[in-house]
Amino acid sequence: MISLADVQAAAETLRGQVLRTPMLPAPKLSQKTGAEVFVKYENLQVTNSFKDRGAFVKLNSLTPEERACGVIAMSAGNHAQSVAYHARRLGIAATIVMPVTTPFVKVDATRAYGAEVVLDGETIADAQATAETLVRERGLVLVHPYDDPAIIAGQGTIALEMLADVPDLDVVVVPIGGGGLIAGVAVGARGLRPEIEILGVEAALYPSMRNALRGENGMIGGPTLAEGIAVKNFGKLTLPIVRELVSDVVLVDEAHLERAVDGYLTLQKTMAEGAGAAGLAAMLAYPERFAGRKVGLILCGGNIDPRIVASIMVRELERDDRIVSFRLTIPDRPGVLGPIAMLLGRLNANILEVDHRRLFLDVPAKGAKLDVTIETRDRAHADEVFAALAEGGYQPARIETASTMD
Amino acid sequence: MISLADVQAAAETLRGQVLRTPMLPAPKLSQKTGAEVFVKYENLQVTNSFKDRGAFVKLNSLTPEERACGVIAMSAGNHAQSVAYHARRLGIAATIVMPVTTPFVKVDATRAYGAEVVLDGETIADAQATAETLVRERGLVLVHPYDDPAIIAGQGTIALEMLADVPDLDVVVVPIGGGGLIAGVAVGARGLRPEIEILGVEAALYPSMRNALRGENGMIGGPTLAEGIAVKNFGKLTLPIVRELVSDVVLVDEAHLERAVDGYLTLQKTMAEGAGAAGLAAMLAYPERFAGRKVGLILCGGNIDPRIVASIMVRELERDDRIVSFRLTIPDRPGVLGPIAMLLGRLNANILEVDHRRLFLDVPAKGAKLDVTIETRDRAHADEVFAALAEGGYQPARIETASTMD
Repeated sequence: MISLADVQAAAETLRGQVLRTPMLPAPKLSQKTGAEVFVKYENLQVTNSFKDRGAFVKLNSLTPEERACGVIAMSAGNHAQSVAYHARRLGIAATIVMPVTTPFVKVDATRAYGAEVVLDGETIADAQATAETLVRERGLVLVHPYDDPAIIAGQGTIALEMLADVPDLDVVVVPIGGGGLIAGVAVGARGLRPEIEILGVEAALYPSMRNALRGENGMIGGPTLAEGIAVKNFGKLTLPIVRELVSDVVLVDEAHLERAVDGYLTLQKTMAEGAGAAGLAAMLAYPERFAGRKVGLILCGGNIDPRIVASIMVRELERDDRIVSFRLTIPDRPGVLGPIAMLLGRLNANILEVDHRRLFLDVPAKGAKLDVTIETRDRAHADEVFAALAEGGYQPARIETASTMD
Repeated sequence: MISLADVQAAAETLRGQVLRTPMLPAPKLSQKTGAEVFVKYENLQVTNSFKDRGAFVKLNSLTPEERACGVIAMSAGNHAQSVAYHARRLGIAATIVMPVTTPFVKVDATRAYGAEVVLDGETIADAQATAETLVRERGLVLVHPYDDPAIIAGQGTIALEMLADVPDLDVVVVPIGGGGLIAGVAVGARGLRPEIEILGVEAALYPSMRNALRGENGMIGGPTLAEGIAVKNFGKLTLPIVRELVSDVVLVDEAHLERAVDGYLTLQKTMAEGAGAAGLAAMLAYPERFAGRKVGLILCGGNIDPRIVASIMVRELERDDRIVSFRLTIPDRPGVLGPIAMLLGRLNANILEVDHRRLFLDVPAKGAKLDVTIETRDRAHADEVFAALAEGGYQPARIETASTMD
């Protein structure tokens, strides 16, 4: 088992090697959730995730012989970059096995840190087999992403820093993939402050740890925004620690993960990947668990595709009816668009898109459909525009988008 | 004039009243610019800009009689929120005059801090006249956004914190609107470290301070992403300080402002408004000024419309050819799309949009145009896809988007 002393030793090892990240009050998140929220900005580490901590502690613990052999890790994500980054710093050759489906941005980022990237296998499991073969054939030392005492102790140093900055936290909310982060944080935090609650969060599509704790068989799999915690297995080392020190594991669905990413961006001005926002997602999904309490959130990673972030922000505006689409039925003759555009202008609705079609089958032969997408102040303003269009005889119908339907 | 002692006194006043924001190394921005970059995260203040500092110092300096009268400010932006926020904390009634064109998000945010918002005038100048009328009629105390010694001293406290954290900075790059921030920072930084360079940045469309310093008549006006520093006048108090202590004022165009907002988001995982990113924009525009030096950037604000951020991120992907559009000429008969989609799939190009049209005049009567937008790994991959489409006889033509043309 890992003890508080192990985590404290890891903190000594890490001094000056990784960023001592800020732990700051988040007033707008506090206002939104009714709790007193503090955020630990692990997205500001060099590779933009907390994985830098465990990776350094593990690599630094290797013997000269092991260092000379070189290390190998299997990861499509943040662990890959952290191992590559610190291995180069320590002069250790690193091989990273990634599934062939890994986005090239992540492959490139890992190569940029000087690692040899081996693309093999369709899935993580296939890549795992490849990594094990390379361990045998080349004598490389495997750096496991979570099931290793050095890794767990390294991640646990986050808890020491959080409590040094805010000693009277009531609860820390921690995303769970394989469980390395929560196991380390639980040992560190409850070691210093036994009465603190450690609450785990998993993506609803990947309830591996919750299943194991409760003896349940919740379905595992599917595409999730929180791919950093989309892990099918729990750790053999992490499970008993979680069982002993963690109060509960809650599940968050995709809509709450999206809203949490958006909340970090628009309210707290910081970029979280899906897994990094899982703690905030839990607060949005279960506000009653946190109301009035002093809550520590670990924003554990910020590596997210810019296209996905852009889409999340626009979808959130759609959910709030600040971007809204109407389909209007109009006679198909010249001069019809003018009055509609004038009407929208008078109501201060900003037109984003207009699509004018005659070909829909449900339109009378001499009629047409006009789809307009507008920007509004808020939901009440959108309703006001709708009413004015109805009043004008344009038979408006709201067009449901992907986001307004979920 | 304002002295280092005034700035130090302001720092005492601010202790515990505003966030002592982090000042952290930005390794990826350093790599991108060839300098050693540190970022001061003023976007983490409660109202998400540095204006919280000067506003508190000014409001706190008022006499009991002045506090009883209440205060007024004229601003469509961050100054409004900071005055509203601290006035409520100090129990002072606040009136904020905003132009009627102010986005409702900002009006709402200011009202949410408890201020009375008066919407009046088409422009800032009109709103200014209204504010002056209210000062006369209601006896309110005007809180100027920059031309006030208390405001200048308050903003200058940023420099003390930056040098406390990184004492050997070579240069601090500071956005200029009316000049309150740079005047305070110059007094604070050069007071502590006379050899430090203070470099100002203005939006190329609003070179007010540069005009004044150089006796030039550069055109002022136009829509800019950096609306927080789109100021037509320089301050009467700030100009002489800038003239004495600032080495130069450089101008940044809209494309560099956009890239800087994107750089903060994708590389440093933090949200900057246009004005807040102006310092980084200057580094991207004039890298030779900074190469090898220790540079302090003040990320002075993070209040930016989510729709604009989303659009900036997508435009940047287009600039890098990670999102690219082709127009293909194809025979207008069934079964043509299949082979094209197969070809793109084989090349790992992710199809984002397909638009198929028969109605373009430059297409033979039996032909059609197919516009496809795809996601690629990088520019080389985009070129590879283009070559394969040409090879396949589809006569591809790149479609220039707004962003690839600038």
